[in-house]
Amino acid sequence: MRAEIVGVGTELLLGQIANTNARWMGERLSEIGVDVLYHQVVGDNLERIVGVVGLAASRADVVLVTGGLGPTQDDITRDAIAALVDAPMVRRGEIVTYLRERFAGFGRGEMPANNLRQADVPEGARYIMPVRGTAPGLIVEVPGGARIYAVPGVPAEMVEMMEGTILQELAAAAGPAVVRSRTLRCAGIGESRVAEIVADLFEASSNPSLAYLASAGEVKVRITAKAATAEEAEALIAPVAEEVHVRLGDVVFTVTDEALEEAVGRLLTARRLTLASAESLTGGSVGARITEVPGASAYFLGAAVTYSAEAKRAVLGVRRETLEGPGVVSRECALEMAAGARALFNADVAVALTGAAGPEPHGGAAPGTVWLALDAGEVTHARGYVSPAERDRVRRWAEQSALDLVRRYLEGRELPASDRLI
Amino acid sequence: MRAEIVGVGTELLLGQIANTNARWMGERLSEIGVDVLYHQVVGDNLERIVGVVGLAASRADVVLVTGGLGPTQDDITRDAIAALVDAPMVRRGEIVTYLRERFAGFGRGEMPANNLRQADVPEGARYIMPVRGTAPGLIVEVPGGARIYAVPGVPAEMVEMMEGTILQELAAAAGPAVVRSRTLRCAGIGESRVAEIVADLFEASSNPSLAYLASAGEVKVRITAKAATAEEAEALIAPVAEEVHVRLGDVVFTVTDEALEEAVGRLLTARRLTLASAESLTGGSVGARITEVPGASAYFLGAAVTYSAEAKRAVLGVRRETLEGPGVVSRECALEMAAGARALFNADVAVALTGAAGPEPHGGAAPGTVWLALDAGEVTHARGYVSPAERDRVRRWAEQSALDLVRRYLEGRELPASDRLI
Repeated sequence: MRAEIVGVGTELLLGQIANTNARWMGERLSEIGVDVLYHQVVGDNLERIVGVVGLAASRADVVLVTGGLGPTQDDITRDAIAALVDAPMVRRGEIVTYLRERFAGFGRGEMPANNLRQADVPEGARYIMPVRGTAPGLIVEVPGGARIYAVPGVPAEMVEMMEGTILQELAAAAGPAVVRSRTLRCAGIGESRVAEIVADLFEASSNPSLAYLASAGEVKVRITAKAATAEEAEALIAPVAEEVHVRLGDVVFTVTDEALEEAVGRLLTARRLTLASAESLTGGSVGARITEVPGASAYFLGAAVTYSAEAKRAVLGVRRETLEGPGVVSRECALEMAAGARALFNADVAVALTGAAGPEPHGGAAPGTVWLALDAGEVTHARGYVSPAERDRVRRWAEQSALDLVRRYLEGRELPASDRLI
Repeated sequence: MRAEIVGVGTELLLGQIANTNARWMGERLSEIGVDVLYHQVVGDNLERIVGVVGLAASRADVVLVTGGLGPTQDDITRDAIAALVDAPMVRRGEIVTYLRERFAGFGRGEMPANNLRQADVPEGARYIMPVRGTAPGLIVEVPGGARIYAVPGVPAEMVEMMEGTILQELAAAAGPAVVRSRTLRCAGIGESRVAEIVADLFEASSNPSLAYLASAGEVKVRITAKAATAEEAEALIAPVAEEVHVRLGDVVFTVTDEALEEAVGRLLTARRLTLASAESLTGGSVGARITEVPGASAYFLGAAVTYSAEAKRAVLGVRRETLEGPGVVSRECALEMAAGARALFNADVAVALTGAAGPEPHGGAAPGTVWLALDAGEVTHARGYVSPAERDRVRRWAEQSALDLVRRYLEGRELPASDRLI
């Protein structure tokens, strides 16, 4: 079954709001095995709405329209759909009664006459009574095949009608097919390198299908399968996921779509270890990410954000000779920061980050130079690299690299060496 | 001038991400007087991309395409546009050189052959060299009139090319009218209260126009004017901006669209003062935000992220009686944390945050309970409140409230009292 999502509203075109309805609907439709091939957005203009919904109805089995069902003059989705199917509008008495009762409940006096437009339904169409709002949804069959569902643009009212009526109707019509997906997430590897490693699987893939999504310091590989049952879909995914995992190896930090900070939390919890961080160029963002995870207080003790050289000495005990010799952006400084944080917080494992985020050089180091260190008592390790990116990406990559260093240590993996650039 | 925005990417159709690029572009295009009549979204399918971009080119003067310019097999926007205008692809040597140099800078060994696809440009087309990313943008004229701009889907890379090249070209083509806007940003006030205070200005406004944008702990008021020259546009904005500022008063932390952390940095720099933070529920995110600003090392010394009670005692000197009496989420604890951080970093001003971010209660305090304190030696101040929001918003509001407390102190404003809820 093919669906298309149409957003109606000039506020979407002006960028006053993002089309989050389309995102939500797309996600839910894919879960029940309905393919969405296009989204369209159009303003509050009758002729253009008719055109857009008509185009959608010509190429999809189901058209989901959001917005333009309210009581004001610029709410004209109802009229556009009636025009498209060339049906006269019928004012439905039961909706009029409902609207009058609802309005009386608001205690705002007489209902404006405008609101009665919401009781108009194209002849022969069904409607969906609202629970939260006052705008009924419409279900209209286009001669020739497609079915149009029109729902309000207010997200909560859209969700109510999707969950209460539309997804159920579509799931029943789509038959027994279900869609499942599994996401592997990788750190310490670029998107193009991932693509190269799994190119043949990607080329061959249709069910399950493969997709990549890259962000700073991370690549996601998503494997999606469609089948009659969840078990069959999982059975299609399993061998491909396994093959992708084997090929990518230990750059994969999760096969369950966890964030890197969640994977680190899971590993610390399993090994009953505590963590502290010593941060300079990241200013506290490693600690902030670790503590985004509810329950992080079970394993995260704290961070010493020593942005100034003096704080590195006073708070973490970095030696004067280090600050004056190799400097604040050096292997020695990172290792002493990690040791200092481990002692200060009495943690099992400490990770340290120091560097020159840019745009200016810092401590004699070029912008983009980063040193990371891990101190777990018996094991200590440092890694340096130079990133060619801008300040915000240098910081984000440093976070990822530091969290991944901890992840690799906790999993007993080989710890990455410094790049030759340093 | 009429523009249309096309998003390319199956991840948009599957609802894995929202089409925030279209929102951002729509907002910026409307500011320079370009009308956007439609958005479309299509998946990574050559034939359908050709169809969608072709439809857009048939009814708009300018088509803005985002996504599908990366190095992997599913990045096919480049090929679709070449197919649409029936132009052969030419591999541009200067882009190849650029890509090789960029890749060498990553220190990840040989560049995958795939990446070279990014050097392909349809014959006769222009391109936009990237600064942050590796995917060049394309500028392709469709025979018959429309111009296509294709930019990467990664938001930062899209913004870079829009601001660096495309908006300037479109503004120039749109004629002599210029559009200017000024943004006031407010903390410690809700959007509906702002709307109430400036309602009459909003109703009356057309040129300049007013718009609000709310995010966690912040409301932006944007005043936009269109005129023949920049001077005339500024002259239209000035009296309205002044009136809005007077009415809103000291909740306005900037009239130049600075982030709150930038405003704090500006004030610290002007007064030659240094800052440190003591953080618990935010895990380091206040320090991370302050150090997002280049040059923050001139005034920010560091943060003590004391997530555990023991770290509050050992690192910041919070008294045992405080931990065992009022507890870790209390006025006393916040004040002792601020005093401890001020001493530890030898800072002029310290700000402390402690609270129960949720979803569980913490230290005997209900989820959403937050205590902030400021210690500037002669001045100390604490403020408590309870937020009804979820974990991530509780943390974000706490950051904003703490930064705004520092901002108010530095500006010599009245410091906010605790809400009655505490």
